[in-house]
Amino acid sequence: MSAEKPSQAAAGPGLGPDCSLSAEQLRRLLYGKEIRNLDLPERAVAASQERDFELQGFGFEAATEQLRQPHTIRVGLVQNKIVLPTDSPVSEQLARKYNLVVVSPILERDELHGDTLWNTAVVISNSGKVLGKTRKNHIPRIGDFNESTYYMEGNTGHTVFQTQFGRIAVNICYGRHHPLNWLMYSINGAEIIFNPCATVGELSEPLWPIEARNAAIVNNCFTCAINRVGTEYFKNEFTSGDGKKAHTDFGHFYGSSYVAAPDGSRTPGLSRTRDGLLIAEMDLNLCRQMSDKWGFKMTARLEMYEEELYRAVQYDFLPNIITEQ
Amino acid sequence: MSAEKPSQAAAGPGLGPDCSLSAEQLRRLLYGKEIRNLDLPERAVAASQERDFELQGFGFEAATEQLRQPHTIRVGLVQNKIVLPTDSPVSEQLARKYNLVVVSPILERDELHGDTLWNTAVVISNSGKVLGKTRKNHIPRIGDFNESTYYMEGNTGHTVFQTQFGRIAVNICYGRHHPLNWLMYSINGAEIIFNPCATVGELSEPLWPIEARNAAIVNNCFTCAINRVGTEYFKNEFTSGDGKKAHTDFGHFYGSSYVAAPDGSRTPGLSRTRDGLLIAEMDLNLCRQMSDKWGFKMTARLEMYEEELYRAVQYDFLPNIITEQ
Repeated sequence: MSAEKPSQAAAGPGLGPDCSLSAEQLRRLLYGKEIRNLDLPERAVAASQERDFELQGFGFEAATEQLRQPHTIRVGLVQNKIVLPTDSPVSEQLARKYNLVVVSPILERDELHGDTLWNTAVVISNSGKVLGKTRKNHIPRIGDFNESTYYMEGNTGHTVFQTQFGRIAVNICYGRHHPLNWLMYSINGAEIIFNPCATVGELSEPLWPIEARNAAIVNNCFTCAINRVGTEYFKNEFTSGDGKKAHTDFGHFYGSSYVAAPDGSRTPGLSRTRDGLLIAEMDLNLCRQMSDKWGFKMTARLEMYEEELYRAVQYDFLPNIITEQ
Repeated sequence: MSAEKPSQAAAGPGLGPDCSLSAEQLRRLLYGKEIRNLDLPERAVAASQERDFELQGFGFEAATEQLRQPHTIRVGLVQNKIVLPTDSPVSEQLARKYNLVVVSPILERDELHGDTLWNTAVVISNSGKVLGKTRKNHIPRIGDFNESTYYMEGNTGHTVFQTQFGRIAVNICYGRHHPLNWLMYSINGAEIIFNPCATVGELSEPLWPIEARNAAIVNNCFTCAINRVGTEYFKNEFTSGDGKKAHTDFGHFYGSSYVAAPDGSRTPGLSRTRDGLLIAEMDLNLCRQMSDKWGFKMTARLEMYEEELYRAVQYDFLPNIITEQ
């Protein structure tokens, strides 16, 4: 039934049987297929040097199709340490002027519902109009990030926004740890899911390259993981019920923003320390191409999970555990 | 509100503000916290050299707790290219003799139900008895892996096995691409989820380090990703309806078996080309410690997802998409 041929081919494409890896081979294992460097305008490069921010650009390819034209768009991920004035008219400044769709996280005060505070992202269309908003579904209760003391769990479900460029959704920050959150945006049709974050810490950083990238793979969509950079110092010291002494900062926001594609490839991350802009050019046709290739949605058996989740949330739920008699 | 202090500390623990990384710092970002090398018996090392297989051992630590003793166990991951005779009495040979629990994937013929064939894993207790079985929930329809032509989707749900060492579950092969599959094993109480695979190919390999590791992180459990190694050549050539010429092999199974912990740390992978045994020592207390730290289950909002999935599977489901008027 089997016979080993100890040949070069046995080690897989381009890899020697002694497992030695060239830099290029290591890159393929870590980052997936090769992606293209974008030619960025000299003016932009000059501006980035003058204003001291990192500027990177990469392009993801998809196969040519018979019935659909390439659906190539560009996305920009901004990571910054500058706190913008909250009253600056974003739509006037950016969206319409530059023909951009802008995803802008805000603190939302909901006067209609008892002044509830929501952690919200507003999507501003390239027409300059507010296309809609989406609220953070999962609120962290972790050390300094004790948002449950002021935010409530969002009630906008898993809204997807049809823009001129493609269908987008926003999974806010801590929602990246919840695979069902990514999944429902994808089920509602998102081709790109943005994940704006403000995350710090030794425990969180090794998870950073994994979660958004996994979401791109298993949901056949692009994901954009964006993180703040730098350290913010507050006027008043605070404690967080975790036994630590009072302090005035959350620690270092490690940036490292990146884009992951549905075939598992990804861009390098932006810097851990510098302001930066990452431009990704992507052909959204890759989403359905990967879905056709892998068939995850078709084999997802959502009916089974819907029933199992229904049982799991009951007060008298008994887990399905087999014990030796 | 914010003021940048361009100091060493601003770059996070142990990292310079110029983003330069030592090998150790790179290891931390890639693999998470440092894990211990296990002292393996000289006899075992000698046997591995004599019989030409790789032998690696690593230990994951957890914090000491007031009310629970450490729950330290050892797990062994075997990756091999040898096709074992299917009639060898596994329980006699291994489980009882060596006080092991064995997870053994088989082809199950179900005579009670029309001779249905299931892709099944049998769990053999360290008593030597069969503790139970669990069937593969998600059947691939991908190129050569067209298992839907002979296997049916499993109907054993998400069974967890209480062993003397801990609660384990088995997510078989292609199920690793389905976050809900991992999730339901975890909801049913699994502390370790084994993921025995036979996977090949350039498209699959960059996903390999991501999916099982993501599952360990978001479900606060250990995951064991095990893959075959080598190339199997079949007597009869076959095609797979993907336009490729008839061939006699699936390609190179790339091994690379590894264990991931609930804090996102992981062992290195075994070789891409050699038979190997990976021993991981783990304190299962780390599962609840990470769950307490991150709170993913508590913030999971399963009721919301149960309702959304219920709607999503209806024939007349309309996705939640906002379009500009």
